[in-house]
Amino acid sequence: MNRPRALIFDVFGTVVDWRNSIARLAGKALTDKGFDADPLAFADHWRGLYQPAMERIRSDSQDYVPLDDLHLENLTQTLKHFGAAAAFDADECRRLNRAWEQLDPWPDVVSDLIALKEKTIIAPCSNGSIALMTQLAKHAGLPWDCILGADIARDYKPKPIVYQACCNALQLEPGDVMMVAAHNDDLEAAQAAGLMTAFIPRPVEYGPNQSQDLVSWGSWDTDITRFRDLVRLL
Amino acid sequence: MNRPRALIFDVFGTVVDWRNSIARLAGKALTDKGFDADPLAFADHWRGLYQPAMERIRSDSQDYVPLDDLHLENLTQTLKHFGAAAAFDADECRRLNRAWEQLDPWPDVVSDLIALKEKTIIAPCSNGSIALMTQLAKHAGLPWDCILGADIARDYKPKPIVYQACCNALQLEPGDVMMVAAHNDDLEAAQAAGLMTAFIPRPVEYGPNQSQDLVSWGSWDTDITRFRDLVRLL
Repeated sequence: MNRPRALIFDVFGTVVDWRNSIARLAGKALTDKGFDADPLAFADHWRGLYQPAMERIRSDSQDYVPLDDLHLENLTQTLKHFGAAAAFDADECRRLNRAWEQLDPWPDVVSDLIALKEKTIIAPCSNGSIALMTQLAKHAGLPWDCILGADIARDYKPKPIVYQACCNALQLEPGDVMMVAAHNDDLEAAQAAGLMTAFIPRPVEYGPNQSQDLVSWGSWDTDITRFRDLVRLL
Repeated sequence: MNRPRALIFDVFGTVVDWRNSIARLAGKALTDKGFDADPLAFADHWRGLYQPAMERIRSDSQDYVPLDDLHLENLTQTLKHFGAAAAFDADECRRLNRAWEQLDPWPDVVSDLIALKEKTIIAPCSNGSIALMTQLAKHAGLPWDCILGADIARDYKPKPIVYQACCNALQLEPGDVMMVAAHNDDLEAAQAAGLMTAFIPRPVEYGPNQSQDLVSWGSWDTDITRFRDLVRLL
């Protein structure tokens, strides 16, 4: 294995705990409007619409729009599902949609990224937009060197162009870049695009009954338990 | 004037002192090879080929390539001009070309950017590539929130698309974004694209005999003497 010259990270689930953060922020918004919906169920429903929305763009049935736009459409559907659509006007929906900019990192993430940044380039390779990732980095204190991902490629992971566009932006060969993710399918696509791969388990990303991605199932270059474990490769 | 929701910065000359940095690094490379060329004249010649090279891309007579590629072509020409081309092989040229990733910031830039970052989004809007700007930020300690500029637009300033692409990436209206530069023509183009503008003089960017950009000549939103002066607008 090469010494990685850059580490690129999946973000939702790998770096930040979207489920509890969205549940907390959406739960408060719903309570303020007098609804007593289960906030975790609300978060799961909202996130459940994520892959189908991106699939329209991956399959070329819709032109690229940033994830913020898809999140907003999905929020409207989720509010309808919970019978709360009429209670939120357009401005309130846009404000609640910005919950995705206020996700909290998993423990040790910030200090570990700071340690990795001393040694190499670190950047998100997320389906989140540059705007979303920039605001999220400010909220969570993520010390990225630059923001890469879907907006650079104008398409969504796991399409190979997203990983390739990150490498191109850094002017590095895919074989010199390592993708870090808590999702085996993300790593499978990165590996197929020629990148090195590191798996980190986030066994409660989807809650205590999570059944997927509890362990790595591919031949990844390394398995880690926290980001700081990557320092030994640098 | 709106309160800026993001500040975007020209980099070469505005944030970093390219002339003395390139002279120092190229001067050492030339001395190591036994040449006694004037290092400041070498820096000026190399930089002098910058605008004509970008103009080929702005005018659509060449497809977009990142600035690193243009810098490398211009280095070859500069070495020829100084009679030193035969002394540098391809790998040595590529190594010397990376001098543009090792430019030193003007005094107070880093501490002032840290102060501005507490209040708003800060990002480069440079003709340098994402790769170049990322490495330069690591070298100089520039605490950017994200890297914007020519690579996002796949064209070069002062074409309006570059300023527009930065605003689009941040999902902000041009009227909510302020361009900060030591070059009046850069601000003129940013203003025409709808951005707010701030002029900072760098009267020795081109050396003690500099004749251009000693003062602001446009109706910019603000004139400053150091970046920290922008805190009052945020």
